[in-house]
Amino acid sequence: MRYDFGSDNTAGMAPAALQALVEANAGYARAYGADDATARAAELIRQRLDADAEVRFVFSGTAANAVGLSMLAWPHEAVLAHHAAHVCTDETGAPGFFGHGVGLIGLPGFSGKIDRTALEAALGEPEVGHRQPPAALSLTQSTEYGAVYTEEELRHLIEPVKLRGYGVHMDGARLANAAAAGFDLKDIARLGVDVLVFGGAKAGALCAEAIVMFDRSLARRIDNRLKQAGQTASKARFLAAPFVGLLESGAWETGAAHANLMAQRLAEGVAVGTPFILAHPVEANAVFVRMPAEAHGRLNEMGWACYRFDDGSVRFVCSWATDAAAVDALLADMAQLSA
Amino acid sequence: MRYDFGSDNTAGMAPAALQALVEANAGYARAYGADDATARAAELIRQRLDADAEVRFVFSGTAANAVGLSMLAWPHEAVLAHHAAHVCTDETGAPGFFGHGVGLIGLPGFSGKIDRTALEAALGEPEVGHRQPPAALSLTQSTEYGAVYTEEELRHLIEPVKLRGYGVHMDGARLANAAAAGFDLKDIARLGVDVLVFGGAKAGALCAEAIVMFDRSLARRIDNRLKQAGQTASKARFLAAPFVGLLESGAWETGAAHANLMAQRLAEGVAVGTPFILAHPVEANAVFVRMPAEAHGRLNEMGWACYRFDDGSVRFVCSWATDAAAVDALLADMAQLSA
Amino acid sequence: MRYDFGSDNTAGMAPAALQALVEANAGYARAYGADDATARAAELIRQRLDADAEVRFVFSGTAANAVGLSMLAWPHEAVLAHHAAHVCTDETGAPGFFGHGVGLIGLPGFSGKIDRTALEAALGEPEVGHRQPPAALSLTQSTEYGAVYTEEELRHLIEPVKLRGYGVHMDGARLANAAAAGFDLKDIARLGVDVLVFGGAKAGALCAEAIVMFDRSLARRIDNRLKQAGQTASKARFLAAPFVGLLESGAWETGAAHANLMAQRLAEGVAVGTPFILAHPVEANAVFVRMPAEAHGRLNEMGWACYRFDDGSVRFVCSWATDAAAVDALLADMAQLSA
Amino acid sequence: MRYDFGSDNTAGMAPAALQALVEANAGYARAYGADDATARAAELIRQRLDADAEVRFVFSGTAANAVGLSMLAWPHEAVLAHHAAHVCTDETGAPGFFGHGVGLIGLPGFSGKIDRTALEAALGEPEVGHRQPPAALSLTQSTEYGAVYTEEELRHLIEPVKLRGYGVHMDGARLANAAAAGFDLKDIARLGVDVLVFGGAKAGALCAEAIVMFDRSLARRIDNRLKQAGQTASKARFLAAPFVGLLESGAWETGAAHANLMAQRLAEGVAVGTPFILAHPVEANAVFVRMPAEAHGRLNEMGWACYRFDDGSVRFVCSWATDAAAVDALLADMAQLSA
Repeated sequence: MRYDFGSDNTAGMAPAALQALVEANAGYARAYGADDATARAAELIRQRLDADAEVRFVFSGTAANAVGLSMLAWPHEAVLAHHAAHVCTDETGAPGFFGHGVGLIGLPGFSGKIDRTALEAALGEPEVGHRQPPAALSLTQSTEYGAVYTEEELRHLIEPVKLRGYGVHMDGARLANAAAAGFDLKDIARLGVDVLVFGGAKAGALCAEAIVMFDRSLARRIDNRLKQAGQTASKARFLAAPFVGLLESGAWETGAAHANLMAQRLAEGVAVGTPFILAHPVEANAVFVRMPAEAHGRLNEMGWACYRFDDGSVRFVCSWATDAAAVDALLADMAQLSA
Repeated sequence: MRYDFGSDNTAGMAPAALQALVEANAGYARAYGADDATARAAELIRQRLDADAEVRFVFSGTAANAVGLSMLAWPHEAVLAHHAAHVCTDETGAPGFFGHGVGLIGLPGFSGKIDRTALEAALGEPEVGHRQPPAALSLTQSTEYGAVYTEEELRHLIEPVKLRGYGVHMDGARLANAAAAGFDLKDIARLGVDVLVFGGAKAGALCAEAIVMFDRSLARRIDNRLKQAGQTASKARFLAAPFVGLLESGAWETGAAHANLMAQRLAEGVAVGTPFILAHPVEANAVFVRMPAEAHGRLNEMGWACYRFDDGSVRFVCSWATDAAAVDALLADMAQLSA
Repeated sequence: MRYDFGSDNTAGMAPAALQALVEANAGYARAYGADDATARAAELIRQRLDADAEVRFVFSGTAANAVGLSMLAWPHEAVLAHHAAHVCTDETGAPGFFGHGVGLIGLPGFSGKIDRTALEAALGEPEVGHRQPPAALSLTQSTEYGAVYTEEELRHLIEPVKLRGYGVHMDGARLANAAAAGFDLKDIARLGVDVLVFGGAKAGALCAEAIVMFDRSLARRIDNRLKQAGQTASKARFLAAPFVGLLESGAWETGAAHANLMAQRLAEGVAVGTPFILAHPVEANAVFVRMPAEAHGRLNEMGWACYRFDDGSVRFVCSWATDAAAVDALLADMAQLSA
Repeated sequence: MRYDFGSDNTAGMAPAALQALVEANAGYARAYGADDATARAAELIRQRLDADAEVRFVFSGTAANAVGLSMLAWPHEAVLAHHAAHVCTDETGAPGFFGHGVGLIGLPGFSGKIDRTALEAALGEPEVGHRQPPAALSLTQSTEYGAVYTEEELRHLIEPVKLRGYGVHMDGARLANAAAAGFDLKDIARLGVDVLVFGGAKAGALCAEAIVMFDRSLARRIDNRLKQAGQTASKARFLAAPFVGLLESGAWETGAAHANLMAQRLAEGVAVGTPFILAHPVEANAVFVRMPAEAHGRLNEMGWACYRFDDGSVRFVCSWATDAAAVDALLADMAQLSA
């Protein structure tokens, strides 16, 4: 493999994260989240979000999302989400496993953003006993297709949901990329999101995501909930310290900004210098390119990791670790292929 | 806190583990367990066990045990375990959560070892539709009370279980300590254990345990199972590399041997130089001391972390990181207390 | 079998129930509970309880209890119940299945009544993340051992539970027998029970129990909940009509009064005319007799169905259908056995 | 309501079923399925199917289907079914609840029959860890849109599934109607179906369906499974006796034949004498008519119960109880409406 554009999780920890992890390793620390790094990381996240909230660190985005959704919907209810959202397509039914059968209602919309009219139609469906009615909305920021919701777009989606007393979950696996693209993190609490997954792994942390519960009533006995779900770290400092490193240094944001910049460089190169066209606007760190199977196969043979996605386009993801030379080399190779 | 005898999970990663983690951080690696470190760690574990097996790395012992048990018993069945086993008392009902209602049948026995007669009585219970009949046995090696099963003891427990076609799970959170105490790891497969949790965190790794499936039919679509359960690491190298470091260097065993030695030093010191008596034979890395609440409280005030256990005694756990000076200082403090 | 004292579910429907069922069979009726009989039965139950409540009819006591408990406790929490309660011993772990791993904490107490001190001790346990803390109390009226709680006893159990904001469930599989023994049904709502299972099958109905939700917030989307749990009757009139028949005719109470009377007759006969002693006070429709295995075996050989219970005594249950001649014949046979 | 074409579950029990129920009510019977009626009904079903099988009676089709599917697929796997199948659209996610997160993969096909090519494409999908791969196929006979699979059609669907070692479930809620339309019940076992739901309620029984397990290994501890799932009848004779009445008298078949005949009468009348057209071939007991919302509304106002379905057509269902005069009156009313 010459370079990996397959995902932003194929890069390692960013230097600030690794250094914090190594430092945190010294000596003894209280287990199960009662350590200093955990408290510090939670505080830094609250500061970023400018909101009071319970914060816990778990091992995977799949678990973070599924646990979060299980707080918002009963098993006989459903969660509204974009049909291409990670919770719908990439988590092996984890919401149903952690939520004991909870349903998912897939909604359409361009570039992974939920279409407002479709949401309202779904909310307006008459309830019947033999279907799972919606109890929550799940949003992804930035989206699965590399788009970034504006504050206004989010407001239009969240308002009718909150009006009905339903909950709102935000999958922020790539929240840093949204922030780097101009999304104001303080809007999350202001808009009424109840549970946020504040992404770590893709932003350069260890395998760790933070569950942020703005609605503290949802956090009732959260430590028991996480322990039962196998999501309590005995050596919790190892999940939290990389967050501390990234957030104190600002690398959580600057790494994402770099990733976004590399995506822009790639997108511009594709548009200008290759026979291919972009499938989605490039607002965060992912670039989706329409290319025939043969061209995709050739790229893979050349050693470029990249995958075909549900919409038929090929995805290239940049991370804090992507360098400009790799982008340029990829572009040079793409320029020689046929559309 | 002067020194932490509260658990063996309050120490950090052992040097060999940390070094391997740092080295593994360089460059790109395939996600979700398709990386080299994961393959290498699995191979090293199979070598230790002298057996063919599917090996996967997960984030916590709670998840490892619960996922393992869910392979062996249906929700309408039960798992036989020592009533003081971790799965019964310390995992917030995780076996029932991952096993969707699976039952636990607690069995008695000295020092955490299941009593053979009690097991046979439980196996001999007539089955009725309104109870959950046993489908599997869960063993802990070394036990929750710091004892180590002999091969013969295990054989007498496993044989009648296998004869009925039931499964056998072994919780090896402290398997390294059992091995260091003379238990031959090759006996595990030979005796017919179906699923082993090969402990990492307490042996000096990151938050990671290996699920070892000797019966490969249990591993059907194991990657889907773990992904759904939120136990698939995107950056899987970080779980595996510390195992590689510990197993290649031999620190997995030598760290445990050191922990056991410190426990011996502590036990001998208690017996000889304090007014307290030992509650259990000290065969691995834990020392249980009978002491009144006042003495225990005084120790805590002096800065020694240690907890009262279900049997009423106070537990002191040693790890790879415990040093002799700390043991001696603790003993000196204990010598001044009243029984 | 000469006569069945094995359970009160071996008798058929009482005449008033059967007649109502046959009458309800005529013509068409709306499905899934939108029929007249369902509305009427619910209203009759609310009248008996002198309280507003949502009422639904389900197929089995196991489901009724388990669904009810799943409204009161999260999977990472537990339900406090007498260790001999039906939910603990006779439902194959249904609370954990419907409650996705919810725990049960068994409490002691004479004759199936929860001991107040033991309850308070359990409530006073410090909470830790690795155990399932209590979120609800389950009471059985009349109890598994044929006793009937007084209003005062219930109050002393319910008050400290409600004070902590926990929920209260009452298993009323034999509520009619408690009522016939003098328990005032209006106390149930007054005392703060949140969810009641109002028993039908053992009182002479079809296989049907009513779930009564005094706290209507628990009934959110209850029809979806029951449908998902396989507890929605398409031909719902068949569950409800027997209730209507029993409640309009008064046979729900008079049948239970008869059953209690037969139990008294049996108990007095045992005390006076046999070599055996009663194991529990006889306050409802069950008689527990201490007798050696040989005597029990002889009774079974003679054709009397009766079972040995968890406390070692042999249980004889009377129903609306038990006749005095059968009781007397049983007593005559028992008189000839040796203690 | 003048007459109910809304569903075949709005009719009561057929006379033969009711009579058998009334007769079974006399005297005492062993509880939980150990009674004579249960044994007799199971034997009659085995005879109809010409196959050895474990047979159990449960309360609802939702439960029967969901329990059956839970035997065939793990939570991290999925079941292939027609996207309009009852398990997908009308059971409030029960398969996921009883199957603890098990997935459903909806397949297309005319009139509720699964398209063979679509099935093969789904089976041929490469497996990935982050999706739920198929482990079983669910078929509905007759289908949700009133069609009846031929033996050959079923064979082409079942063969590739069995070849991969996957399981096959058949939802036979309207199996009697398929049989009356010429489908040979003996083909079910011959073709390799593993679990069949043998319909009762819609065929004139009480709320009861039979789970038929041809693969007896799936029936391991089935009584525990059903008890835990709240699907064990204490007074089991009441579920079984109506089956005995229907099957001994032949009314199970003749009632369905009558229902099919009424559906034919209705279909022919619609085609010839109304301005509307049929949406699906009428092979069993349901008639789907394309009609504008206004016409549908007018019919409902006239007192005819009938519902709009997922494909946009309006469904009319006939049962053992539908009489020709009602069909003719409905047709007369439809004739006056505008298309």
